[in-house]
Amino acid sequence: MKRILLKIAYDGTNFHGWQKQEGVRSVQGEIEQAVVRAFKMPCNLFASGRTDAGVHAYEQVAHFDIDDVVPTTKIKVVLNRILPPDIQILSAKRVADDFHARFNAKKKTYVYKILLGKRNVFQANRMAFVEKVDIEKMKECSLLLQGKHNFRAFCSSSTSSKDFVRTVHEIKIKKSHNRLDIEVTGNGFLMNMVRILVGTMVDYSLGKIDKEDIIKAFENKDRSLTGRTMPPQGLYLKKVFY
Amino acid sequence: MKRILLKIAYDGTNFHGWQKQEGVRSVQGEIEQAVVRAFKMPCNLFASGRTDAGVHAYEQVAHFDIDDVVPTTKIKVVLNRILPPDIQILSAKRVADDFHARFNAKKKTYVYKILLGKRNVFQANRMAFVEKVDIEKMKECSLLLQGKHNFRAFCSSSTSSKDFVRTVHEIKIKKSHNRLDIEVTGNGFLMNMVRILVGTMVDYSLGKIDKEDIIKAFENKDRSLTGRTMPPQGLYLKKVFY
Repeated sequence: MKRILLKIAYDGTNFHGWQKQEGVRSVQGEIEQAVVRAFKMPCNLFASGRTDAGVHAYEQVAHFDIDDVVPTTKIKVVLNRILPPDIQILSAKRVADDFHARFNAKKKTYVYKILLGKRNVFQANRMAFVEKVDIEKMKECSLLLQGKHNFRAFCSSSTSSKDFVRTVHEIKIKKSHNRLDIEVTGNGFLMNMVRILVGTMVDYSLGKIDKEDIIKAFENKDRSLTGRTMPPQGLYLKKVFY
Repeated sequence: MKRILLKIAYDGTNFHGWQKQEGVRSVQGEIEQAVVRAFKMPCNLFASGRTDAGVHAYEQVAHFDIDDVVPTTKIKVVLNRILPPDIQILSAKRVADDFHARFNAKKKTYVYKILLGKRNVFQANRMAFVEKVDIEKMKECSLLLQGKHNFRAFCSSSTSSKDFVRTVHEIKIKKSHNRLDIEVTGNGFLMNMVRILVGTMVDYSLGKIDKEDIIKAFENKDRSLTGRTMPPQGLYLKKVFY
């Protein structure tokens, strides 16, 4: 057996997220089925982390083990021939037998896309719509959010996590015409954390949250002091660093 | 009663086309339901023409009749609040009682979008992928296709049309980076006609079809002499002229 690392892009619109679940369409399920079909052997795929329903990936990373007889150079081409058009294998390469897509991940970058002003039917599954924001205020807020904190107040209450301390290394906000890209890099993210971080920057920029609220949210770990959870369709997993 | 003209944009990806059908999601069905819900009155919506499953519209036109008590200025806002994110009402205005979205249409423009080279997972429902084409040869072919012809050879065999004579006023081919937009304007289109016109230009540019084939296709009305039917996701209804 050898271990294979896949880099994978997907449009999350028509998936119930990454994780395999009975009776619904998932990215993991589709790729595992494709491996079984292509190479006639079972497949257990381990991703760097789950993505929720509707969330996209420019470059998700996952690993699985396969018999040595399968030529590594064929895996990408063969899988792309079988996979549906909303999943694409970007690369497949051999890694060390003890590599783990999740446990070895050192940091991740997500990008959140917002369309300002009028909604557009062709961006409905690709971006969030927000009428207006104050970019300078968002940048001000982003400085409060960066760093090592207990992010319990920036996490869905349905999480199963026990440890809420994470480091947000960097938040970059770029505007071009009526589009806003918010890039968040951290050593790990809690459930819905990027969506709540972005929602907090949006609500801060609209004057619904102030500096004191954020300081208190970190201190008291109080979800009611942070911003809205942005919808999943604006979120893209951009890169996993090892 | 008064007659209302709607201009409508939709992402056709998750619809079984324009036309209402039992048990499946259609654009007509969604809008009719939204009118019933919003204004508590029945609705029969008549479009300028059907679009197939997966085909998009930048601006479809349709009409329906509604009680005079409903303020025309409210229709757009109220419907957009109810409609799903993949349908958007661009405008709603009152027209003459004898206006008919289909019978009064004088010409239509469709645009067909092709991504050249590598496929892209985020364009899978928005464009067709073609490895390469010869733009100059496509333009050469477009000149053979323009004009008034019997287009039976450019029409799906499952059509119910009896009259196959149509006029293609103009075909414009624009390339920008690795994207190709093919704009086709005509006085009317047969089933799959735009998709077969584009497929014929593509196959002509690849040397699979020559000038003689096209001349014979018009003469003999022979579908086997024309090109492939391009997939629906590259096709957009752009404008209906009255």
